[in-house]
Amino acid sequence: MSYRIGSGIDFHQFAEGRELWIGGIKIPHHKGALGHSDADVLLHAVCDALLGALSLGDIGVHFPNTDERYKNIDSKILLKESMDLVSGKGYKVVNIDSTLCLQEPKIKKYVPAMQEVIAKVLNITTEDVSIKATTTEEMGAIGREEGLMAMATVLLQKI
Amino acid sequence: MSYRIGSGIDFHQFAEGRELWIGGIKIPHHKGALGHSDADVLLHAVCDALLGALSLGDIGVHFPNTDERYKNIDSKILLKESMDLVSGKGYKVVNIDSTLCLQEPKIKKYVPAMQEVIAKVLNITTEDVSIKATTTEEMGAIGREEGLMAMATVLLQKI
Amino acid sequence: MSYRIGSGIDFHQFAEGRELWIGGIKIPHHKGALGHSDADVLLHAVCDALLGALSLGDIGVHFPNTDERYKNIDSKILLKESMDLVSGKGYKVVNIDSTLCLQEPKIKKYVPAMQEVIAKVLNITTEDVSIKATTTEEMGAIGREEGLMAMATVLLQKI
Repeated sequence: MSYRIGSGIDFHQFAEGRELWIGGIKIPHHKGALGHSDADVLLHAVCDALLGALSLGDIGVHFPNTDERYKNIDSKILLKESMDLVSGKGYKVVNIDSTLCLQEPKIKKYVPAMQEVIAKVLNITTEDVSIKATTTEEMGAIGREEGLMAMATVLLQKI
Repeated sequence: MSYRIGSGIDFHQFAEGRELWIGGIKIPHHKGALGHSDADVLLHAVCDALLGALSLGDIGVHFPNTDERYKNIDSKILLKESMDLVSGKGYKVVNIDSTLCLQEPKIKKYVPAMQEVIAKVLNITTEDVSIKATTTEEMGAIGREEGLMAMATVLLQKI
Repeated sequence: MSYRIGSGIDFHQFAEGRELWIGGIKIPHHKGALGHSDADVLLHAVCDALLGALSLGDIGVHFPNTDERYKNIDSKILLKESMDLVSGKGYKVVNIDSTLCLQEPKIKKYVPAMQEVIAKVLNITTEDVSIKATTTEEMGAIGREEGLMAMATVLLQKI
């Protein structure tokens, strides 16, 4: 029973005229997240935690934001590719815990749908995917709603 | 021997006329932490790590800041309730590691007392509760002493 | 097979006329990192994760920035001393995952050398040392290139 630990953090600016994708779900909001891909801050943090647990590089190495193939790409595809690398190394996900830091919008009602998306891609149950949320209490760039941040930790186990 | 990982992060603004509770200890300081409860940033991060490890929601779901029952509440009660949920799922805490990010005051001398508080509530020894501290080197909102932040990671084990 | 979890976070300001040491490697850049030691933000985060996993205090407790012995010290020495404390408690490192948050410079090409440095000190292979990097998308103090941040998580196992 061999375990590995991984952690990821990701940031995106908010921007007018962009869609807001978080955890594979499109969230209604007057601003979206800026990025080369669909800018899904939560899925990116989870990708980085998966890759990091096995020292496979990071999301910028695997899916560079200078590559036209990843322009506006659905981050669920990046998550699937990251998970395939983990599976290829003979590991499975035990559980993921994550936190979104953003002032607005409230994401609580979207959490079950996000859990479904992530659990399906990672071949785990929704009970093994935790998505929490907090504000920064109006402090800093995130508090001024310039953008949002996500952090994820993952525990892997050798199959 | 089944393990689970959890992580939490919490922020509070400093405010005049409030008490400063960190890790269940009242710290002498000219400013306190603003919040609906006693605004104990460290205990809140630990609660979120405990809840997150078992995908039980987050502190905002369990103890909403719109609920009068939690007005100025002692966060040790929230920690106890979070731990009860963990125990109810058949898990115990292996260890907790946490970091406080704040410019002032220095908290080093209060750490042993904080460890006692947390260890007692979680039914572990003080050697299983790590509390570290760092400044942000005067950068950002925390560096300007607008507020403080705490992060916690937890390892759980199935009993 | 007894495991422990640790996590660390560290911040340093950028400053003209200083060297930029990250992960034990000197990086060519027009600004360096300000600090009492060599201000190696990544090694400091790893030290704190190692110490935190066994509740051994933090880097500020062990290597105070008021102590002349640590003036401009090579942080690899601090990492070695932290690892010695871990070994002394009968634990080994399973794996480390870390993330650098900085706007500039790009550190990707230095990662293999950083992995070599850390792996050697911790008696693990480079495959057990993950170093990822992200920007904050130009947000906040780190986005304005006032400084940089590193986070590390570690999994220890009883020998």
